[in-house]
Amino acid sequence: MKRENLAMLCDFYEFTMANGYFKSGSSNRIMYFDLFYRSVPDGGGFAIAAGLSQVIEYIRELHFDDEDIDFLKRKNIFDEDFLAYLRDFRFTGDIWAVPEGTPVFPNEPIMTVRAPAAQAQLIETYLLLAVNHQSLIATKANRIVRAAEGRTVLELGSRRAQGADGAVLGAKAAYIGGCHGTACVLTDQLYGVPAAGTMAHAWVQSFDDEYEAFATFCQLYPNNATLLVDTYNTLKSGIPNAIKAFKSVLLPMGITKCAVRLDSGDIAYLSKKARKMLDDAGLTECRIVASNSLDEHLIRDLLRQGAKIDVFGVGERLITAKSTPVFGGVYKLVAVENEDGTIEPKIKISENVIKITNPHFKKLYRFYDNATGKALADELCLHDEEIISTQPHTIFDPNATWKTKTLTNYTAKPLLVPIFKGGELVYDEPSLSEIRESCLCQIDNLWDEVKRFENPHTYYVDLSQKLWDIKHSMIEEKNKGLR
Amino acid sequence: MKRENLAMLCDFYEFTMANGYFKSGSSNRIMYFDLFYRSVPDGGGFAIAAGLSQVIEYIRELHFDDEDIDFLKRKNIFDEDFLAYLRDFRFTGDIWAVPEGTPVFPNEPIMTVRAPAAQAQLIETYLLLAVNHQSLIATKANRIVRAAEGRTVLELGSRRAQGADGAVLGAKAAYIGGCHGTACVLTDQLYGVPAAGTMAHAWVQSFDDEYEAFATFCQLYPNNATLLVDTYNTLKSGIPNAIKAFKSVLLPMGITKCAVRLDSGDIAYLSKKARKMLDDAGLTECRIVASNSLDEHLIRDLLRQGAKIDVFGVGERLITAKSTPVFGGVYKLVAVENEDGTIEPKIKISENVIKITNPHFKKLYRFYDNATGKALADELCLHDEEIISTQPHTIFDPNATWKTKTLTNYTAKPLLVPIFKGGELVYDEPSLSEIRESCLCQIDNLWDEVKRFENPHTYYVDLSQKLWDIKHSMIEEKNKGLR
Repeated sequence: MKRENLAMLCDFYEFTMANGYFKSGSSNRIMYFDLFYRSVPDGGGFAIAAGLSQVIEYIRELHFDDEDIDFLKRKNIFDEDFLAYLRDFRFTGDIWAVPEGTPVFPNEPIMTVRAPAAQAQLIETYLLLAVNHQSLIATKANRIVRAAEGRTVLELGSRRAQGADGAVLGAKAAYIGGCHGTACVLTDQLYGVPAAGTMAHAWVQSFDDEYEAFATFCQLYPNNATLLVDTYNTLKSGIPNAIKAFKSVLLPMGITKCAVRLDSGDIAYLSKKARKMLDDAGLTECRIVASNSLDEHLIRDLLRQGAKIDVFGVGERLITAKSTPVFGGVYKLVAVENEDGTIEPKIKISENVIKITNPHFKKLYRFYDNATGKALADELCLHDEEIISTQPHTIFDPNATWKTKTLTNYTAKPLLVPIFKGGELVYDEPSLSEIRESCLCQIDNLWDEVKRFENPHTYYVDLSQKLWDIKHSMIEEKNKGLR
Repeated sequence: MKRENLAMLCDFYEFTMANGYFKSGSSNRIMYFDLFYRSVPDGGGFAIAAGLSQVIEYIRELHFDDEDIDFLKRKNIFDEDFLAYLRDFRFTGDIWAVPEGTPVFPNEPIMTVRAPAAQAQLIETYLLLAVNHQSLIATKANRIVRAAEGRTVLELGSRRAQGADGAVLGAKAAYIGGCHGTACVLTDQLYGVPAAGTMAHAWVQSFDDEYEAFATFCQLYPNNATLLVDTYNTLKSGIPNAIKAFKSVLLPMGITKCAVRLDSGDIAYLSKKARKMLDDAGLTECRIVASNSLDEHLIRDLLRQGAKIDVFGVGERLITAKSTPVFGGVYKLVAVENEDGTIEPKIKISENVIKITNPHFKKLYRFYDNATGKALADELCLHDEEIISTQPHTIFDPNATWKTKTLTNYTAKPLLVPIFKGGELVYDEPSLSEIRESCLCQIDNLWDEVKRFENPHTYYVDLSQKLWDIKHSMIEEKNKGLR
């Protein structure tokens, strides 16, 4: 799929609604939308926000070409004036977002859009798609990286990705989440994520015998010799031939760094046996790479069982986030601006309480304990509320309002930063490695209880008293109308 | 991600191997690779092959730009001659493939590549990625469409897709698998999959009351009025306001076709109540659309419970194939050509028996019963074997060779057709709707037992006697070497 701009990557209803706003005279009415998610994938305690750089690229290039307008015209349901409007369309609104790599929690905005109705509506699908996909993979990668306890984790899943973007941008998101590199060459070329790789079974099979395949490879890449040892039989053939090749080709060159890769069989057992064989041969610097349907659970189990693995190569279970392949971000109207400039909050009621939205144009604060540096809680408040860190601040559970806590020695950090202002990019984008470092550092600042893989402690995302009052009076109001 | 050609979307090891073949003088040696998969997603009885049109586009545009060569050069491990070779690189080999939309079974080639070693190796990742992704979604879509028993199924998942291609090409694959349309505008524009859509909750919320939102929409789109009825309360507010809007706006225009969409709550209960309310109001032609975390199992359950649904809108569980989000296609060396032109079969042994490959350059036949038209079994044979439908043909289970069956009144159809010959496209691509029709027709020709959602009958994929003999003597040979 070759597209310079992805304006047409939207849901058809965004055009029917935008045309509708246009025809009913409300297309320039300012609307506020929040992008947030409702539950953490894999039952984890937090997600990692990602996708912002794709959103920035998309917004900057957003326009409709003649062929797009012609296509819409042929549908025979759109107004000529609306199509003329699309011809000159560009995004003129404001966007705030949590920086990429930030840990985020359910029901807090990852992004807030303030824009004329038609514009805010037309960007819905792409914003969701970019944030959902990238956050999904960054979150999954971080779980896997944490399971590996400091060992190297490489992303190897391109061939099982859900499309080209799934592979290339997935590998980028995995890097944000803490992976050390990827097999995907294009991700290296476009984004500087270090790519690596050595051989597939075909290399070994293409030679008359395994030793010859290994020795040839060591001669070609003496500084990069990772030999795949399971084409025929890992312990009876692969490891002995690898040892022979290392000894006959690398050691005479004075090279002691090398590696073997296990790609099938029982990795715990094989890695221990292989380690012993390599050590017995004096190849103590030879590293063992493992890659066979790995994820955070299997990696943790392997390490518990004493597997001797230095590098984990993770494929399909990372690049598709196989165990929970959907990040359920939504994009909900939270306010409209009236002609006099006042902001009117909007709410979506649902029979499912968790689906009731937090209304209004909001700010998001994160409280850090000054003594430990740890994140204590988040608070959503109205856009014009200010939290002063020098003053004690009382937070309360929005679902159990009698549970309160007064913070004293804390710092309140606003998380949503301005990205676009009046359609202009006002954000100085950090580099990908800065994003990755920031991500890992912020995760260090979460309590271990929040980082448990299963049944983690629920991090508090509270509402300010003012916001809580507005929300609950709106719910009351709507329910009254239905009685 | 903007790329004219996706040559660099490959695993790094493909370059190290290609460079290795080049330096060891074997880059022009002809290799044969099979692309096949090992197990059906969701425990189903078959998969649907898709992705070929992406592969064709990729192969035709395959080349390396100066910036690509420069990038590789900076890695300091590739030979100058190899980089010069990449500068003039184009695909000169042959590709055979099963046409898109064909039901395919584990361990039979969906694609066979015959090409010089370096070429065959460099295309591995993209071929797998395209076929894996598209086949995954086509297969899942077909399960969902079959569950809907003739009712309309629309793909609505763009926002939850794993990247832009995931959304756009996913919607295309879903159409191949039998979906009737999509919400994705770009898939309509690029591939002609009919796109449709009406309103989100934001439309309703942007008005002061729900009735006004509905009536305005009916005035704007009298022939396309699907009203979303769950913003506040489906039965107390949404349906009554929809009825009022239909009666006051559409009926006076003589329009009786309209629809409501249920997007939350208990769809079975709500649809029955809504149907009754609509019928009581005389709106018997009003259709009910349902869209809330649906998949084949939920749709089947809803229909069993008597839900009154005319159209299913399916989102994240289709576009990510949530329950099994990976199609495990692999790309394995099966033969090499010697200098005298003889074909030397290759095999990959594994401790895991299911991972032992079927060696050699092969043909794939499907046997149809002339009496019923049903597919009976498939057979893999050597490339130069011919099955003549007029002669009785005995097939046997490759894992239980005493189980034999002699076919008489049958037609043997070769499934792999030539796509590229000497690098030139020789395939006359069918249109997308032809692919979809062919798919649905071929699925009609499978026995119901193979189409069960769970524990289906295992369709036979047999080996010819010659192929079986070669495979087993190769396994013997390899094992002898390890004793």
